[in-house]
Amino acid sequence: MDLNSKALEYHDKLKGKLEVSIKGKLESMEELALAYTPGVAEPCKEIAANKEKAFDYTWKGNTIAIVSDGSRVLGLGNIGPEAALPVMEGKAALFKKFGNVNAIPICINSKGINDFVATVKALEPSFGGINLEDIESPKCFEVEEILKKEITIPVFHDDQHGTAVATLAGLYNALKLVGKNKGANIVVAGAGAAGLAISNLLLEAGFENLLVVDSKAILSKKSDSIETMNKFKKHVAQKTNKENLVGGLKAALEGADVVIGVAKANLLSRELIKPMNKDAIVFALSNPTPEIMPEAAKEAGARIVATGRSDFPNQINNALVFPGIFKGALECKTRQITEEMKLAAAKAIASLVSEAELKEDFIVPSIFDKRVAEKVAEAVRNANLNSQV
Amino acid sequence: MDLNSKALEYHDKLKGKLEVSIKGKLESMEELALAYTPGVAEPCKEIAANKEKAFDYTWKGNTIAIVSDGSRVLGLGNIGPEAALPVMEGKAALFKKFGNVNAIPICINSKGINDFVATVKALEPSFGGINLEDIESPKCFEVEEILKKEITIPVFHDDQHGTAVATLAGLYNALKLVGKNKGANIVVAGAGAAGLAISNLLLEAGFENLLVVDSKAILSKKSDSIETMNKFKKHVAQKTNKENLVGGLKAALEGADVVIGVAKANLLSRELIKPMNKDAIVFALSNPTPEIMPEAAKEAGARIVATGRSDFPNQINNALVFPGIFKGALECKTRQITEEMKLAAAKAIASLVSEAELKEDFIVPSIFDKRVAEKVAEAVRNANLNSQV
Repeated sequence: MDLNSKALEYHDKLKGKLEVSIKGKLESMEELALAYTPGVAEPCKEIAANKEKAFDYTWKGNTIAIVSDGSRVLGLGNIGPEAALPVMEGKAALFKKFGNVNAIPICINSKGINDFVATVKALEPSFGGINLEDIESPKCFEVEEILKKEITIPVFHDDQHGTAVATLAGLYNALKLVGKNKGANIVVAGAGAAGLAISNLLLEAGFENLLVVDSKAILSKKSDSIETMNKFKKHVAQKTNKENLVGGLKAALEGADVVIGVAKANLLSRELIKPMNKDAIVFALSNPTPEIMPEAAKEAGARIVATGRSDFPNQINNALVFPGIFKGALECKTRQITEEMKLAAAKAIASLVSEAELKEDFIVPSIFDKRVAEKVAEAVRNANLNSQV
Repeated sequence: MDLNSKALEYHDKLKGKLEVSIKGKLESMEELALAYTPGVAEPCKEIAANKEKAFDYTWKGNTIAIVSDGSRVLGLGNIGPEAALPVMEGKAALFKKFGNVNAIPICINSKGINDFVATVKALEPSFGGINLEDIESPKCFEVEEILKKEITIPVFHDDQHGTAVATLAGLYNALKLVGKNKGANIVVAGAGAAGLAISNLLLEAGFENLLVVDSKAILSKKSDSIETMNKFKKHVAQKTNKENLVGGLKAALEGADVVIGVAKANLLSRELIKPMNKDAIVFALSNPTPEIMPEAAKEAGARIVATGRSDFPNQINNALVFPGIFKGALECKTRQITEEMKLAAAKAIASLVSEAELKEDFIVPSIFDKRVAEKVAEAVRNANLNSQV
């Protein structure tokens, strides 16, 4: 049986990858009287007097919502909220498995940005955080921007920031291995949610020589098209391409040290990789088919290749990031997941590959490495502490 | 330590009475590939082609939302959504414990009816049913009425219908014990959510001699106040009090066979109970303090007394109802929880007290009776089948 048939059978048999479990026992009237009426009135009264106590007396302190409108699911596009449910359930399972965070799949009907925002704002009291997922661009940027201002629990669009943190973690180790630094010439191929988020995080991390290429050309503050860009893309266009290079992917990759593909299958041919600098680093992150297959990239001169796939070495996987990010965010009750937290998380993930282990085919830890989520959570908590001094 | 302190400690220690559990194993890349990417795309595609398949491939088929705005929580009033969370979590625990239904507490910010309805409509794709809870009256009626028309999953306001079904179950057995029938004179004391729902269900069940008394007087289609009533109360006023009796609770109770108190603590004095007929049945359902204490009611002549409390016999408890109602509704994928289903559920609960067991202090089964939820679910499924022939 092929993977697709197996996956369908798996889902049909389980009828849901998640379930709700009860933590206390409910075997007697006495226990019911504590967990439910009349005893339950006491924590209610405490929370009514101070909303923050919901973090102490309910599961809010360890529970988030994974919210999607199903407008950009995997490579399937806008398949709607019901069809997005299996993905959100799977993600929730990973949250629990790796971070011990309760995550509830909330796939919503929404006509536009205002609807989406209104629903999440309505949900705020019940959850300790909001993981946005599989929302089309640029809606995803706007929704996140508004929510970060208007709600008091952390909001994190994983397709942007989880990808960016995992990418940066891999990049730190890849550069270390080849002996390059923040002066490296980096090309981000793709200017969607992931591409722009990666670019922003690389800028935050201090990388200076960054070119971002969309489906047409290298983004440039001097290009005519800048006026028609949404403000999120425009921001990246203004902050990158210091020398106002003109051209497409080919021009960008000449003399590049790193290319990070977050665009589409087979975008990067051998011919595009060849003119890159010695010890080239190629991250081909599109799923399921990368921008270039690892073997081809290596033939074209790449020294280190990473993909988003589990069947190749160096999987740049958001699952390294999101469980620990929310674990840490919930533990320190931060209201925002800041740039500092993301940078610290990337460094924390990178640090789990020791000097002795670091090699071309091992630049990031396995997602099954049990240290990852706690290490990321610790980084988030420390960044939060540092922000308060 | 008193119950209140114990309950607070219990909640502080547990930090949430629920958690999310994973049903499949996620120990290897192979299992991840089935549960998450890339395998998960298959059920997504199936659901995109036919939304109903979400019931087969996700937890939607066994998962409901418990939705509240916290506007009328227990006896605490409008304490807001955060403070309502402990109650909704407790209720979710009962859903799991008794019906094996996954229930997610969704306490929402909402300014009014439209907001509330919009949020639930947005949530529809993720859940197999909506249990409305602790919403002030008359908002609860309007919200439910609109949602029943506008969404395709069952909506059930437990404070109304759960209470009504449990009450009717107890009433069936109480009347059987005293040898009375549907001609009995019944007084419903209280015209809030529970009072009106009980009245409607009794009418559906064929009880003909019904008086409903609000805080001022017996409802009457001839009263001046009928024009100022909301339509839900007006409906009950029009369908009850056939002889257009005028007066208050005292007038109503003279010659009554049954009184069902769903109003407030200590409403029913001994003096009010005494003029009731022989073999009087007194349901004093306010919590935590009933309309009259059982001992006092018996001294005043009542033969059968029921309350909402677990420390007296005959607890009329919604927990007899809601787990089985949703279990059955989800199993047969009904779009509505109909009057027929509620009536069948009440009969099913009553039937679990055998002729031999039935006595003054035992008119309803224990909520720990493991047969209850399945019996109620079966009744719902059968009613659904009958509606389709």
